Order: sequence, then structure tokens, then C-alpha cells
Amino acid sequence: MKTLWQNCHVASMANGTYSIIEDAAIVTEGAHIAWIGPHAELPDQGDIKTVDLKGAWVTPGLIDCHTHTVFGGNRSGEFEQRLQGVSYAEIAAAGGGIASTVRATRAASEEELFASAKRRLQQLLKDGVTTVEIKSGYGLDLASERKMLRVARQLGEQLPVTVRNTCLAAHALPPEYKDRADDYIAHICSEMLPALAAENLVDAVDAFCEYLAFSTEQVEQVFITAGQLGLPVKLHAEQLSSLHGSSLAARYQALSADHLEFMTEEDAIAMAASGTVAVLLPGAFYFLRETQLPPMDALRKHGVKIAIATDLNPGTSPGLSLRLMLNMACTLFRMTPEEALAGATIHAAKALGMADTHGSLEAGKVADFVAWNIERPADLAYWLGGDLEKRVVRHGVESTF
Amino acid sequence: MKTLWQNCHVASMANGTYSIIEDAAIVTEGAHIAWIGPHAELPDQGDIKTVDLKGAWVTPGLIDCHTHTVFGGNRSGEFEQRLQGVSYAEIAAAGGGIASTVRATRAASEEELFASAKRRLQQLLKDGVTTVEIKSGYGLDLASERKMLRVARQLGEQLPVTVRNTCLAAHALPPEYKDRADDYIAHICSEMLPALAAENLVDAVDAFCEYLAFSTEQVEQVFITAGQLGLPVKLHAEQLSSLHGSSLAARYQALSADHLEFMTEEDAIAMAASGTVAVLLPGAFYFLRETQLPPMDALRKHGVKIAIATDLNPGTSPGLSLRLMLNMACTLFRMTPEEALAGATIHAAKALGMADTHGSLEAGKVADFVAWNIERPADLAYWLGGDLEKRVVRHGVESTF
Ligand SMILES: [Zn+2]
Ligand SMILES: [Zn+2]
Repeated sequence: MKTLWQNCHVASMANGTYSIIEDAAIVTEGAHIAWIGPHAELPDQGDIKTVDLKGAWVTPGLIDCHTHTVFGGNRSGEFEQRLQGVSYAEIAAAGGGIASTVRATRAASEEELFASAKRRLQQLLKDGVTTVEIKSGYGLDLASERKMLRVARQLGEQLPVTVRNTCLAAHALPPEYKDRADDYIAHICSEMLPALAAENLVDAVDAFCEYLAFSTEQVEQVFITAGQLGLPVKLHAEQLSSLHGSSLAARYQALSADHLEFMTEEDAIAMAASGTVAVLLPGAFYFLRETQLPPMDALRKHGVKIAIATDLNPGTSPGLSLRLMLNMACTLFRMTPEEALAGATIHAAKALGMADTHGSLEAGKVADFVAWNIERPADLAYWLGGDLEKRVVRHGVESTF
Repeated sequence: MKTLWQNCHVASMANGTYSIIEDAAIVTEGAHIAWIGPHAELPDQGDIKTVDLKGAWVTPGLIDCHTHTVFGGNRSGEFEQRLQGVSYAEIAAAGGGIASTVRATRAASEEELFASAKRRLQQLLKDGVTTVEIKSGYGLDLASERKMLRVARQLGEQLPVTVRNTCLAAHALPPEYKDRADDYIAHICSEMLPALAAENLVDAVDAFCEYLAFSTEQVEQVFITAGQLGLPVKLHAEQLSSLHGSSLAARYQALSADHLEFMTEEDAIAMAASGTVAVLLPGAFYFLRETQLPPMDALRKHGVKIAIATDLNPGTSPGLSLRLMLNMACTLFRMTPEEALAGATIHAAKALGMADTHGSLEAGKVADFVAWNIERPADLAYWLGGDLEKRVVRHGVESTF
């Protein structure tokens, strides 16, 4: 079943640039792109269903390659307390912070977690997202991590979005392992990861490498186990300090290293050599009022591919719009709108190991795209908030919201 | 025709605080609130149409008290050029900046301006706005200012929103008055304002007081004319430098002074005495990467009412979500969610001279409210972007989008 989409311009994002095709045509066949190019060069298609895109700009469906969409509760009460002058220490002493999200996530049923995550995910989708990565990491025990990852799988089955599951058991130390971080890492490696992988709940393995989380030595144990299980790795690295987790990630051919405000030029060189994507998270930078910028010049100089994501999570980036993150990437990190859009399409696909099939509009790739009623592609990074008029197509079928 | 809205909690924002009513009931009669309070205290209403709000949190409809919603073109191309390294001077030399918006606005037909402004305004409304102020100021000649203000009036007639028109002829110096700012001010006072006021296109008069716009002496001429015409005044003041425009505004009993990053404590004392509202515009602060914060402590200490607005405009704040501005007010200006919500409801109403009828949910006031599917009122300032589930009621009637 073929469909011709016409009367549009395309920013295909092939090769990480706009790669603009004015007055374009796209032929989809089932879930894939059969042909794309200037309308004037379109081969005869015979009698074919035709859709008029009315002058829209078509981009690849947006890809949010770093989210913690599944969690219990939210932390707006804590957000308010902080602004009323309550200190982090007082909030932590009262059981707040990530510990409160872990408690709420453990206490929630699979159905409750699904319902709240679905509402958040729908907001991302209404903004143009067609692929999303979802991490575990608020369960921190086998049953609760399994519950989170099962919910993520269900979201991909029930909503018009491709979901990639990442196991982030090494996110924080659960209370029952207080002062026994090495034991928890051993438990992850011997019990949790093998069990969750055997249930086909894991597409990649992540960890949080930071002085207040896990050391590079502990992360390396997790990476070794992931390798034995045939799973690719990712890493939360250099967000608050420089532990060179990103270099470690590169050594293990990680798909991505994420945050990276405190990374060094040597880290960038290592990542470039291994093809590890730098996933920048401007929403967390903004929300935490950070001042240390990621080393944009070093990343560009060494040709590290840069992706942008929401980091959607209850504590440090309650971000429900990837398009808003494009603006923040431009405004706060001084990326160009073209770099930002590549960061939410083709480079985000690479950060998920999906660049062969997703992230750009080329013949043979999956037909995930958005037709935006905008003046030019830069509009996607320019407008602050709002709900831009659009039509979203996933696997060749128009989504309805 | 009465309606009972029940199964909800209310943050009425009376007196500028949440003023929470748990398990509340609201009775509307036509466009007004006939009764509001705890459901347990609801007087017998006989046979009445009833709406189940399913546990939602009800707030006043949001009020965006500072926007430039009507304009020709957009400046996303310039946004992109700047990030590609083109300097402001080069862009200005090529006819960019506000001059390009003035050209595009003058060239656009009334129908074109209406169509583009309607799309933007619909985005604000979908985010919960029921009242909006719209300024002229990109026409800068009588016919073009009239065109903008007529479009603003039409928006209020055709969309479910109350529009207040502000004449901002003294926004910038039009090219035909180059080096003759005093002559342009004289033209505004003798020709433009009297004509536009006579056509009932003006609800308030504004000016831009800044070293790169108009001096306090020039602004004062505009204020004197406004007073003669019986129109209240507002002022763009202390955004980039301290000219004490906000004290001048206070001397003329201005409804508001807006931006204010560089205001002094003396300015705050003057504003408090005159009841002039401080309208803070965190979107512009963010977009311009400003570092000078408005003097929050002085504003609070002297009891100046603080409002928050989008400043929706193509050059310095392409903001399409007032809720996002609540987050920025909290994150960047360290306001509490409660202060921020008061700033987008009751204090915004005061900045428009409408606080007697709008901005809080009390018996006798206009029935403009939003029922949000959220956990607690702080959620409105907590989430970054997205499209929160909600029902919007204006003049007692539910809006559809
Ligand atoms: Zn994260
Ligand atoms: Zn303004």
C-alpha cells in the first residue's frame, strides 16, 4: 500500500544537516520510505493515494533519546518547598529527593505507573516525538526495575511511538544497601541484569557515574556484565564533576555519554574515536541553574555527534517538550537550530543505535515524520513553548491525538 | 441559567494567595460566579445542570498581561543567523531587528495579521489563558497602528478570550523620523493617540523607556496626552539600564511598569505607593541571556504586586506558553509557585485594571477558570512545556480547541 505525500518542503537531516528539499514528494510503502526527492523528479506512481501537506515543512519524527518517563508521584511539592526556602538537607532528611521517587515507584502498581507515564508520554508525542528511550532506575530492586521496564514496553505497544528500554539499575544506591555500594553493583551484575535481559526487557544498560552515585570502577563492572549479555551501554557522566566516565564509556564503545558539562577535551577525543554520541540535556542544566557549560568547542572540533534530549524526570528536568529543549540547546548552549534539530533526529537515533533505520528521511528508512505548519526549520528551535500545528506520521500512518 | 461545577479543589487566588478550597463547588450564573465554597456548605440549588470535574484543581483563567501578539513575519531566520555567528550590527545593517518586523507588519494586510496572530493566540489559549493584553507598536504610523489594534479587537470578538488593547506607538523610532524622536513623540500626542482613542481602539497607553528608545521626558509627553484622553498608562522600563522610568510611571499612576531588571529600591517604593504592578518578563530575560535579576527582595519588602507575562514578541521572547513563564519565574527569578500563579492571575488582572472583575474566583466575579488534571497547584509552575490536560471555562461556558 503506497502513499504519496506532497506539497511540502523537507529537511531530511541526512548527514546531520538540514539537507533541504524544496517542493518535495515522499512516497511511503507500508512503514517505510520508498522514494523521497524533489516533486519534479518523482517517477510515475500510477494510481496512488495522495496526501496534500499544504506547504508544510517535513522533518524526521523527533527522537527523545534520554528520558525517565516512568516514575511514581512527582516532586512538585519539593520544588515548591525549595523555593519557599527549605534546604536540600532538610528535604533529604525528611525522605525527599530521589528516595521519595523510589518509594513512590516501588509502591505503585504496574497499572498506576502505566497510567501516569502514558499521560506524560502523550505530551511528548503531541509535540512531534515518534521514538523515545525510557530508563528504569527508580525501582532499584529486581521486581521494581522489572515493573518499570514492563511499563515501558507496554507504552510502546499501546501508543504510536517506538520505545527503547534502558536498564538504569545503577542509578542510585537503594536504602537496603546503605554503605554497601559494591554489594549493590555485584547484585546488579549477578542477578538483576541477567534476569531482566533474559526477559527481553533491556535494549541498553546505563549507569550514573558521579561522586554522589557510582565510581568509574563500579560502573565498569556493570559495563562488563552488559558486554557479556550482548547489550550496548550508555552513561550519565560528568554532570557535576569530572570523573572521566565519558572516557570509560568510550572505552566500552558506549552508544552515548550523557550530560557532560564537566568533560574534558581528552574525553571528547576518546568519544570521537569510539563514535560515542554526546547527549546534552539543557533542561536539567536550566532547572538546576548550572553555570558550567558543556565543552561545545571541543565536541565540535573533534567531530563528536551531539544529541539533545528532555531527560524527562521528576527531580531535575520535568520536561514535557523536546522542542523546548531545542530552544534551550540554542539559547543556553549556543547550538545552531540545525545542530539542535540534528540532535533530536539523526544523532539521537545514533545515541540509541538506530541510525541505520531512523532519524533521517531517506529511501529505505522507516517512515516516521512530522509535517509542521511553520515558516522555516529554524522555527522549531525558535518558539518557546506552545503547541505548533503539525501532522505526525509514524510507520507511514498518520497519528491522531 | 445556572451551572454547578463540582468534584474539584480550588485555588481561588483571592488576596494573591492560593486560598485553597478543598472539595469545592462553584455555581455559575451566565458569565459570572454566583457562589463558590466548600461543597459541604453549598446552599440548595434545586434542579441545576451539574458538571463533574473529576478531582481537578481549578484556578482562575490565566491572564497574560503583556504581549505583542500581532506582528508580521517572524524572526527565526535572524535567530538562526545570530547562532551561526552573524553579529547584531551586521543584522541591523541588513535591515534586521525590529525594523524588519515593522516592515513586515506595515506590508501585511489586516487579514494576514489576523491569521498569524490567531494561530499564536490559540496556543496561549490552549495553555489556559482567558484574558490577554495585546500591544501595537510595530506599525509606528497611524494607519499601521490602527491596523494592529483593529486586529487585536477582532481576536477578542472571534476567540474565547478577553482582549485588552494597548497602544505602544512609542515603541521605536520609525525610519521616516530618523534623528527626530521629539517630532515623532509630538506626532503620537497630537495625531495618533487622539485618533485611535476616538475610534475606541485603545484601553491603555504604553511606551518604551530606554536609552535605545525614548527618554523619560519623551515618555512623559505621551503620559500627559494619555491622561488628557482619560486612558491609563503602562511602561517598558529599566530592562537594559536604569532611567527610573518606573518612578515616572508611578508618578502617573501607571497600571504597571514592565521588565524592571535594573530598577532601584526607590523605584519600588514609588511603585508601591501608587499601586503600580511590577510585570516581570522571564522569557525575555531568558531569551536575551540577561544576568541582572529584577530586585525581588525590594519588590517584596515594599509590597509591590508582581505579575508574570510572556512578552510574546518576535525579537526577544517568542513565548507561546504563559505556564512556561511561571516555571521561568520560579527557576530564574526564584519566585514561589504561589507567587508565580498570583502573577498570572490576580496581579495580572490588576496590571490591566481589571482586578475588580477578573483574576480570582470569588462570588460576583467573571466565571473564567481552568480545571487542571494535576496533583497540586505547584504543578503549573513545575512542568516544563507540554500540554497539561485541562478544561477551560470562559464567561461560564466551556471552551473547545
Ligand atoms: Zn538521566
Ligand atoms: Zn514588551
